[in-house]
Amino acid sequence: MSLRATQRTADASNGYQPGASAVDALTLHAREAREVLWVMLDGRTRTRAQLTTETGLARSTIGAQLDALLESQLLSPVGEAASTGGRPPVQFRFNPDARVVLAADLGASHATLALTDLAGRAMGTVHEPINIADGPEQVLDWVLEQGQHLIDDSGRRADLVGVGIGVPGPVEHSAGRPVRPPIMPGWDGFDIPAYVQRGLSVPVLVDNDVNLMALGEHILVHRKVEHLLFIKVATGIGCGIITGGQLHRGAKGAAGDLGHVFTPSGEGVLCRCGNTGCLEAVASGPAIAARLREKGLDAHTSLDIFKLIEGGNMLAAAELREAGRMIGDTLAACVSLLNPSIIVLGGVLSRAGDHLLAGVRERVYTRSLPLATGDLQILPAGTGRNAAVAGAAVMMTQHVLAVTR
Amino acid sequence: MSLRATQRTADASNGYQPGASAVDALTLHAREAREVLWVMLDGRTRTRAQLTTETGLARSTIGAQLDALLESQLLSPVGEAASTGGRPPVQFRFNPDARVVLAADLGASHATLALTDLAGRAMGTVHEPINIADGPEQVLDWVLEQGQHLIDDSGRRADLVGVGIGVPGPVEHSAGRPVRPPIMPGWDGFDIPAYVQRGLSVPVLVDNDVNLMALGEHILVHRKVEHLLFIKVATGIGCGIITGGQLHRGAKGAAGDLGHVFTPSGEGVLCRCGNTGCLEAVASGPAIAARLREKGLDAHTSLDIFKLIEGGNMLAAAELREAGRMIGDTLAACVSLLNPSIIVLGGVLSRAGDHLLAGVRERVYTRSLPLATGDLQILPAGTGRNAAVAGAAVMMTQHVLAVTR
Repeated sequence: MSLRATQRTADASNGYQPGASAVDALTLHAREAREVLWVMLDGRTRTRAQLTTETGLARSTIGAQLDALLESQLLSPVGEAASTGGRPPVQFRFNPDARVVLAADLGASHATLALTDLAGRAMGTVHEPINIADGPEQVLDWVLEQGQHLIDDSGRRADLVGVGIGVPGPVEHSAGRPVRPPIMPGWDGFDIPAYVQRGLSVPVLVDNDVNLMALGEHILVHRKVEHLLFIKVATGIGCGIITGGQLHRGAKGAAGDLGHVFTPSGEGVLCRCGNTGCLEAVASGPAIAARLREKGLDAHTSLDIFKLIEGGNMLAAAELREAGRMIGDTLAACVSLLNPSIIVLGGVLSRAGDHLLAGVRERVYTRSLPLATGDLQILPAGTGRNAAVAGAAVMMTQHVLAVTR
Repeated sequence: MSLRATQRTADASNGYQPGASAVDALTLHAREAREVLWVMLDGRTRTRAQLTTETGLARSTIGAQLDALLESQLLSPVGEAASTGGRPPVQFRFNPDARVVLAADLGASHATLALTDLAGRAMGTVHEPINIADGPEQVLDWVLEQGQHLIDDSGRRADLVGVGIGVPGPVEHSAGRPVRPPIMPGWDGFDIPAYVQRGLSVPVLVDNDVNLMALGEHILVHRKVEHLLFIKVATGIGCGIITGGQLHRGAKGAAGDLGHVFTPSGEGVLCRCGNTGCLEAVASGPAIAARLREKGLDAHTSLDIFKLIEGGNMLAAAELREAGRMIGDTLAACVSLLNPSIIVLGGVLSRAGDHLLAGVRERVYTRSLPLATGDLQILPAGTGRNAAVAGAAVMMTQHVLAVTR
């Protein structure tokens, strides 16, 4: 609590009233110039004439939209294009450096905080062990304190457009409140945006970490893909869903709850949710570790399994592959239902050789119909450990630039 | 083939070159006025001032968009609003009667063809037995012939903006071609739009019937719902998915293939797809009928089961409820994955009492997590037998009015 008090004093003393209204103005600009902004977000350079062709809008409309985007610095004029004669036409490019975002990935036992540009690229990063079970005030005070340092170091306080936060549990996204999160004692229903806004008066958005991993992986690695599933396999098993290029959260923000789908392999096995037969009860890190202990190995966490496999232990590798098969059985149903073009595997267990990937592929390609698997790729995460923090930044950018609902 | 020849002659003789360019102009108007059109599509009346408040756009922009929509007749001025004094402000309303759509629902053994307004409401309808296995030319010639009658009778040939067609099999939506449809011999890869456009030179869109049922049910009954699943249970079992208010077709148009998801109840049972354990192999109309025959009842089709249950046969009712439980087991996984707010049951078996519904509810509410089922409704289809033809019309309207991608 003391930090917040200090924070408010500091804000008052330097006269900083950071900018909800500045952010609102930016959002309005972006919305009024949506057709041009939407096209330019791919990062390629274009001339006025190319924009007219691509959007189908009148030249006067293009002109007005370009003016708004240049004024807000979201576009920059660059270089010169080849011309058919006369004065070479000006080219434009999206300028992700125009503003900055504070992005946080809060895990059960560690956190990453980064100041990023509008494309989710980090300009400064802090990794630190935390304990999410310390509760929201202590953890968010850490976010505010470290965030202030990152912002001060960058000298870009006036350019901050928002804070994106990922947490390891279900979240009512529209309100920014965790909903009965199993591993986050003290966080149930806590108003995260209100608390963070006492220290940083900019928009604050919150989502669960798997949704943000899907968003980060989609924007940074598979931007052109319309339909993608991101599967995180660690202490829990969750899924982030991109449909039609947008994150799918579902009616109550509960979409992607793959860990508690019934799997025949888990028949009769009790899950921590109180049900039996959940995928998580037989294919998560703790479930694999329990089987390894029965075989005399010293394993308790996903990280223990990772280290055993890195050290060449074939029993651990075989158990991980078998877990991959169980996950693959459930993913086969997801493929039939959603017909994604890419499934990405992330989380610490996806980085222990290719064993998880091999098990998943074996079952998905066997089980799903040819039309759905013909062009389906199943890949490890390209963003590695930074997917969630990149996704938190992208979530905020999409909100501020009004490119999502 | 003779019909087509006649058709072309008739077109040439009356000088009718129906209107791709007129449709293009309408689409451009709609796109340039998208913010106002989007708000008005709910059918409520609004004044200029209300539109300014709701869209956040400048008054001049609202004016320009209103002009475009009034000129194209998509909006009409209506009545008078209560005013704070002076001249009462004009109100506007979306005018679904401005244009017409030809919508076809082609089933295995019957077809429905309707001329509808832009809201999918039928102004004239033809029901007729067909045999989809007669192949595309014979069936589509019937569509063209009957379609011409409907259009001629209405006197609205110049207002036709497109043809929407539903077929009982997988479709590559962007190309309008069926993809290896199991019950449509001769249709694989057939270019339906090109064939239909020889008789009616307007845009033609094709999708599978379950997707169109989901679209029709969504627009006509649950317009405000963002996330909806429509389950058809008949000869096959399929699912149409609405996410974020839009139809989700997946990467190859194969989304919603619920019938071939593995279900433990089907372990070892051979499916017509060549795999074993598919939901369709144990819970579809033919599977239920086979079990009823083993019990000495005369049942071969979904309609036979429907009639037995309507006649009070409790063996048939019990088998249908058991099929509902199997479908419910698979739907529980869909609920965990997608977190819809409504599941709608359609198809002939959903109309045989509440037995299917009861079985589905029993398993979904038992199995899925509280956050996902707390506000979940499971309902019979409100559109009854007309869902697909309404959806075909809505698909065309959304395309022409540029309100979907």
